[in-house]
Amino acid sequence: MTAYLAPVRDMEFVLRELAGLDEIAALPGYEDASWELVASVLEEAGRIAGEVLAPLNQTGDRQGARLIDGKVGTAEGWGTAYRTLAEGNWIGLAATPQYGGMGLPSVVNIAVSEMWQAANMAFALCPMLSQGAYNAISECGSAEQKAAFLPRLASGEWCGTMNLTEAAAGSDLGAIRTKAAKSGDHYLISGQKIFITYGDHQLTENIVHLVLARTPDAPPGVKGISLFIVPKFLVNADGSLGARNDVHCVSLEHKMGIHASPTAVMAFGDRGGAVGYLVGEENRGLEYMFVMMNHARLNVGLQGLAIAERAYQQALAYARERIQGKPIGCSEKSAIIGHPDVRRMLMTMKARVEAMRALSYVAAAALDKAHSHPSPEQRAATKRYAEFLNPIVKGWCTETGNEVASLGVQVHGGMGYIEETGAAQHLRDARITTIYEGTTAIQANDLINRKLLRDQGVEARQALDEVAGLAEDLSHQSDDDLRTIGRALRQGAETASRAVAWLLTAAGEDPRLPAAASVPLLMLLGTVLGGHQLARAAVAARRHLEAGNGDPSFHAAKLKTARFYADNLLPQAAGLLGAATDGARSVIALDDDQF
Amino acid sequence: MTAYLAPVRDMEFVLRELAGLDEIAALPGYEDASWELVASVLEEAGRIAGEVLAPLNQTGDRQGARLIDGKVGTAEGWGTAYRTLAEGNWIGLAATPQYGGMGLPSVVNIAVSEMWQAANMAFALCPMLSQGAYNAISECGSAEQKAAFLPRLASGEWCGTMNLTEAAAGSDLGAIRTKAAKSGDHYLISGQKIFITYGDHQLTENIVHLVLARTPDAPPGVKGISLFIVPKFLVNADGSLGARNDVHCVSLEHKMGIHASPTAVMAFGDRGGAVGYLVGEENRGLEYMFVMMNHARLNVGLQGLAIAERAYQQALAYARERIQGKPIGCSEKSAIIGHPDVRRMLMTMKARVEAMRALSYVAAAALDKAHSHPSPEQRAATKRYAEFLNPIVKGWCTETGNEVASLGVQVHGGMGYIEETGAAQHLRDARITTIYEGTTAIQANDLINRKLLRDQGVEARQALDEVAGLAEDLSHQSDDDLRTIGRALRQGAETASRAVAWLLTAAGEDPRLPAAASVPLLMLLGTVLGGHQLARAAVAARRHLEAGNGDPSFHAAKLKTARFYADNLLPQAAGLLGAATDGARSVIALDDDQF
Repeated sequence: MTAYLAPVRDMEFVLRELAGLDEIAALPGYEDASWELVASVLEEAGRIAGEVLAPLNQTGDRQGARLIDGKVGTAEGWGTAYRTLAEGNWIGLAATPQYGGMGLPSVVNIAVSEMWQAANMAFALCPMLSQGAYNAISECGSAEQKAAFLPRLASGEWCGTMNLTEAAAGSDLGAIRTKAAKSGDHYLISGQKIFITYGDHQLTENIVHLVLARTPDAPPGVKGISLFIVPKFLVNADGSLGARNDVHCVSLEHKMGIHASPTAVMAFGDRGGAVGYLVGEENRGLEYMFVMMNHARLNVGLQGLAIAERAYQQALAYARERIQGKPIGCSEKSAIIGHPDVRRMLMTMKARVEAMRALSYVAAAALDKAHSHPSPEQRAATKRYAEFLNPIVKGWCTETGNEVASLGVQVHGGMGYIEETGAAQHLRDARITTIYEGTTAIQANDLINRKLLRDQGVEARQALDEVAGLAEDLSHQSDDDLRTIGRALRQGAETASRAVAWLLTAAGEDPRLPAAASVPLLMLLGTVLGGHQLARAAVAARRHLEAGNGDPSFHAAKLKTARFYADNLLPQAAGLLGAATDGARSVIALDDDQF
Repeated sequence: MTAYLAPVRDMEFVLRELAGLDEIAALPGYEDASWELVASVLEEAGRIAGEVLAPLNQTGDRQGARLIDGKVGTAEGWGTAYRTLAEGNWIGLAATPQYGGMGLPSVVNIAVSEMWQAANMAFALCPMLSQGAYNAISECGSAEQKAAFLPRLASGEWCGTMNLTEAAAGSDLGAIRTKAAKSGDHYLISGQKIFITYGDHQLTENIVHLVLARTPDAPPGVKGISLFIVPKFLVNADGSLGARNDVHCVSLEHKMGIHASPTAVMAFGDRGGAVGYLVGEENRGLEYMFVMMNHARLNVGLQGLAIAERAYQQALAYARERIQGKPIGCSEKSAIIGHPDVRRMLMTMKARVEAMRALSYVAAAALDKAHSHPSPEQRAATKRYAEFLNPIVKGWCTETGNEVASLGVQVHGGMGYIEETGAAQHLRDARITTIYEGTTAIQANDLINRKLLRDQGVEARQALDEVAGLAEDLSHQSDDDLRTIGRALRQGAETASRAVAWLLTAAGEDPRLPAAASVPLLMLLGTVLGGHQLARAAVAARRHLEAGNGDPSFHAAKLKTARFYADNLLPQAAGLLGAATDGARSVIALDDDQF
């Protein structure tokens, strides 16, 4: 596996030109996010990602996590790496200073998180979950809970987990059966959770489990789920650790990838009941957990991007080094980067990575504005936008991340299939991203039901109007690349608008139709919105080139990459239109026994 | 991993309705291929595939092949399984009776081979290579070589391998450096080959290596390569085994998938030189090896189909069994097959599998006609058609097989990522198919250079005219499904024709352009030609339904599956048009250092 070099320059370009960091740094609370600070944060994070986390990625894959005598052991180097992140206050990067965090905007945190995920996804899941647990307790916990847990989570002293899934309750959380019985000032939790990422380990002295469970008289389904804090060790009034709680890892899964991330089966209450503390009110647990889930979804989308970036770097290094054949027009044998199809694959990887990065960071920036903008209208508007983007970032970036990781294998030819090379691991690791934190279908379901149908397409039309507006602007440009990008973008926006319009009509006819079309629609929207971001990048690059204050090579590449996307990838939106609209009818045409 | 049930009925449908087995059985030499015999062959092969090979697939993956004390050990059960195939004369199914074969057409052999590959791809590579070696020696070997090796290969007494790749010679076979020095009636071979599938094992008493090497005064590049037979044990005049030849497995690769297939590094001549026998004339080795490679390419394309069928069966079984949530319109929790998006995935898998099967079998049928048709014109015409289809079957079916195997994981949700389930193995196994026997880019290169540009698109236009002709017929049908299929097919044919026409022009402008567009073009052609075969299936199904001699459920499903493909998958051809044409310009727009 080749080294990882954090693409700091590309990240800064997106932060500055597309995600509006200047605007965010002007919001109350984010005054510290000066360019100087952000640049040094990115530089230092890049160094740690490249020097500390990345070298452990392949060894972690080989060693995996192991359950021995009831204790989960992580791969070599995990402890040192974890301490590096905790001691540098990286886990608390976006946490509020009140609880010891750095108070930086989400959009900066997301750039740093991309580095962790790209360097070592199996490792980076751990701090990612702690940040999610922090957010959930921060938004929904009591003052006592915040005081007890937030400083420890922000500092990395303790880790957080999310405990949702049970054997019979995966996508259908309403089927959760874990019980919570009131017992004085706390509850006793009993039941079994599966697929718990970093459910147990020795990296920290305590683990803060956020657990969905059901009180005895709770209504059935999702409206009867409550959220509990279940620490691995109870916490005394003075903050010291007390008794071992009745929550234990009983086994680890043997997975296709992310071997070094322990995926645990967790038993609660085998010895009488695990002590749990109710978060907020009973029966509102799913609502609270969505704070953590939305964070996790954005971050899993980010994993799609991150692993794609890593796969791209790996493939690029190989393509530059591997000599094979004479590329057309060359008289000498030379590196395979000269072969047109290798170039097509690398361009596809590069363009998709850049589109994913832009869309993910823009979504994170919307969260910052939704959180801190002084205007309530702006807060509400950017919150709606962030919510609209959330399933698209998760669904589209993870599906695309898989495609890019697979192209990364392909660039290597036979060597890509050999595990020593490292390209295959990226694909194996990436494969989970379209599944956990809600499969692509669950994201698409969220998109059509909670976003498109609920507001009758208002938010989507607004986003697509912006795309169409830029397309129109570009059509008047003198630059051929920009005009071509504009044309492709206009077609993309029209295609997406047709699909959204179809959805609103079809839902009234047969509610199965939007559901059958939902994943193609999500991919269509991702393709178009990703193209929109690259078009914005092209405009910014052109501006710098014209003003003479850019780096001619870097900014010209941005323009050409956007053009490549417009020529080669954006047209795939049109290829999805059938499946995103009337093709839905033939999805449901067969009887069960005709399969 | 769920059981494998050979889809005999679907295979028979394709053989009868689409691949023209009746016509082939009327050709000289294939008189035995009566429906009765073929049906019993398929039934028995299906039984062996399901009962003998399939149960070893997952254990083989876990155990892998091992090199211990210089000997390659295969996974448990491999020996018994191999003997079952050899003793049943399955390896010699398409071999001529003169050498002990069954003399059945390729198209029957391909159906049987699909079963082996679906049941256990890591195992099935072994007989597949023996068949390829048989073909190469049969077409290019001397009478003595045929007498010495063909009966043993056909009977399965010995195995065959293909030794092409070297560390510095992968896609670029011209770079081969293995040496062959004449020494009396034979040559002494020395050098190292890598990625040799079943390069060594204990399944048979002898292994017949077909090896590309270079004689001392050979011209450089591909025109200086000769083909040699290098048996693991020399063969005495009486046919008994003689001395151990100087060819040894020195290591095995650790791969992403097909763990149970030993992928060997083979050392030739470490102890003075391996005895090799020249096939045909010196320096014509690549031409001869292409006999084996074309066989292997068709069969690797078939692997794409086979693993997709297996993944489909696995996903379908899970979707029927797994209870999760209430599907729209259902009042009870029920199996996930009721959820529209799960259905979309299953329909995509089913439609793609059926399209791949039809196209692969049609390609094999063309080989039979090219081999045995009494008319020289017909032989030549079907040979050209088979050669045109070969890279499309290999490239498109393997890329599609990966997509289907990945969907198979997705249908399982979290369980798909757990190795015990078995879905992940199909994806890991499938991933090699777009790489070995020539990557997709190499297939696409073959398609544009040796097929499209060499005859200026004549063969492609002929194939697309047939598609357009059927589309036109369908547009006059009263059946709504057929009319819709016809409309989509017409658009597909037009799109493909535009791409082919672009290619012929662009090649004159800059030879890098067709190369940059070649893989999207191959995928576009595969998508359209696959859709054509499903449209033919729909016509046949409609005919049976109208004549009242069909199975209403089975034939209606064929019609609806073709309709699904036309609505949802065929439009992807339009999405590929940009990349298959002018998008090529932006593929080559960046300088090397701008990546």
